[in-house]
Amino acid sequence: MATYDVLTIGNAIVDIISRCDDDFLIDNAITKGAMNLIDAERAELLYSRMGPAVEASGGSAGNTAAGVASFNGRAAYFGKVARDQLGEIFEHDIRAQGVYFQTEPLEDGAPTARSMIFVTPDSERSMNTYLGACVEFGPEDVEERVVAESKVTYFEGYLWDPPRAKEAILACARIAHANRREMSMTLSDSFCVGRYRGEFLELMRSGAVDIVFANRDEALSLYETQDFDLALTKIGADCKLAAVTMSEEGAMIVRGGERIHVPATRIGQLVDTTGAGDLFAAGFLHGYTQGRSLEDCGRFGCLAAGIVIQQIGPRPMASLAEAAKKAGLA
Amino acid sequence: MATYDVLTIGNAIVDIISRCDDDFLIDNAITKGAMNLIDAERAELLYSRMGPAVEASGGSAGNTAAGVASFNGRAAYFGKVARDQLGEIFEHDIRAQGVYFQTEPLEDGAPTARSMIFVTPDSERSMNTYLGACVEFGPEDVEERVVAESKVTYFEGYLWDPPRAKEAILACARIAHANRREMSMTLSDSFCVGRYRGEFLELMRSGAVDIVFANRDEALSLYETQDFDLALTKIGADCKLAAVTMSEEGAMIVRGGERIHVPATRIGQLVDTTGAGDLFAAGFLHGYTQGRSLEDCGRFGCLAAGIVIQQIGPRPMASLAEAAKKAGLA
Repeated sequence: MATYDVLTIGNAIVDIISRCDDDFLIDNAITKGAMNLIDAERAELLYSRMGPAVEASGGSAGNTAAGVASFNGRAAYFGKVARDQLGEIFEHDIRAQGVYFQTEPLEDGAPTARSMIFVTPDSERSMNTYLGACVEFGPEDVEERVVAESKVTYFEGYLWDPPRAKEAILACARIAHANRREMSMTLSDSFCVGRYRGEFLELMRSGAVDIVFANRDEALSLYETQDFDLALTKIGADCKLAAVTMSEEGAMIVRGGERIHVPATRIGQLVDTTGAGDLFAAGFLHGYTQGRSLEDCGRFGCLAAGIVIQQIGPRPMASLAEAAKKAGLA
Repeated sequence: MATYDVLTIGNAIVDIISRCDDDFLIDNAITKGAMNLIDAERAELLYSRMGPAVEASGGSAGNTAAGVASFNGRAAYFGKVARDQLGEIFEHDIRAQGVYFQTEPLEDGAPTARSMIFVTPDSERSMNTYLGACVEFGPEDVEERVVAESKVTYFEGYLWDPPRAKEAILACARIAHANRREMSMTLSDSFCVGRYRGEFLELMRSGAVDIVFANRDEALSLYETQDFDLALTKIGADCKLAAVTMSEEGAMIVRGGERIHVPATRIGQLVDTTGAGDLFAAGFLHGYTQGRSLEDCGRFGCLAAGIVIQQIGPRPMASLAEAAKKAGLA
């Protein structure tokens, strides 16, 4: 018996969220829609130029774990915070959501990671991430029991940015597969794919990763093509199962040559796209670990993504389990 | 010439905001709708029981200063944070809003104050405040030049909770009046009035305070009566000018025997009442320091309050200056 449905692993980040206009992004050389990696000095500069903000726990895989738990799935998380106030906030929020989280916080090193997220009038988010304590995440943080007892272990492609996280992930893949569990990853960001294309393809083709999440741009970037249909064909060949999100066009689930299209959920007002992909993965993996059909998995994913983009902040404030019930999905 | 329209002084607090049901308040002996003062131990206990939260700079008078600045008024603030991450967040947010804020942060003492705010399904907020570094705010934090150069110096009744803030306030009143400026206070909370009724009345009757803000409950508590009309008559006799808010019934402005009623702004959806009184004061004082009629002052106040209760968090995310323009008030 598995103890956890989904274990997620990622950079443990507190989001600092503010609105700005497009000129601000241009003036500050922030790549729109992307995750921009920044150092401590630039973090200080950007914060000094940022308007009044609100804070919320984030981190791509952290959001996914919170989403799974909000569906009443059993979730666990590995990620590195520092022993500081932002670290306490992160720890509180993920545990309060019901996620198992016991990674040892970093002492006397860099502070907890934060991402300054600028939301433009079109509701697109542009992230500026200072990795802080996350750079110390490594194989020593892998709790073998938790990996062995999780149906799916899911991680962020973003983990290829800090130096030693990939060693932890490869260790997890060995443990998971030795226990006949599955490994899953998200490609995270098209620029991240640009940085680690070869390694990501190797993870998929070697079978270290079974299930891949991507959005359209990431899938195109992975295969360096503008032909989306071709990218879908290739991703279907490179992993056992892929789910590719397409914003308002929903998602395409690809299993070998088979394709299943799931429409996006209709929404009221688009507020902030932060967390859309993370929550899609949460919904999909929740359905998947409950043994639901791939179409239902996609519907769970689109439901969760549709909810999180109608609020500020990357983790749904309302219960996803209740939303699923209302949508006739539970 | 005044350099600032409004200087506000208060407990510098970061809000930690979560939703809960009414049973949670009962089970945890939290007085609904009130500001409950808590110590470090209870703060830890309540936080361990709190659901996932979001953080935003708060503090009653801090919200008021932010509101004045959002109307494009010239605002300043005195309040004590610690030199820690929450203190940096507070400092950032109020300065980024355009408020002058230079109070020296506390070193090597208690951490920055925080208030755990539980929002129930009726959108009422119940606050649980750990004062932390605020207890060290005292007369040495008064910047004489700023008081002398502010048209109105406004402070929270909450400042009677920490031990030495009242000395700072009395010093401010002397400076302000010596410079022919005005002093203003909010009664803050009906339980706070219960704690300091005699001192608050003395502040008013001695002329240390010119303009008083209260809500209905606070006005009733001040005069230990259930007769609202009587309370209004008495408050009119005890200070030069009073503005008493009455939730969905708007506000009553009282100058001696004169009364001016201002209706509440029509709102879409009530989300979170946090900051309603603070923002009413911001709007009122903005109008007042711009030389507007008392009726217009009330309308500015109701506008700002109406905006902040339609969002989560105590400071309006959108520009109040633009909202005033739209409402034909600018």
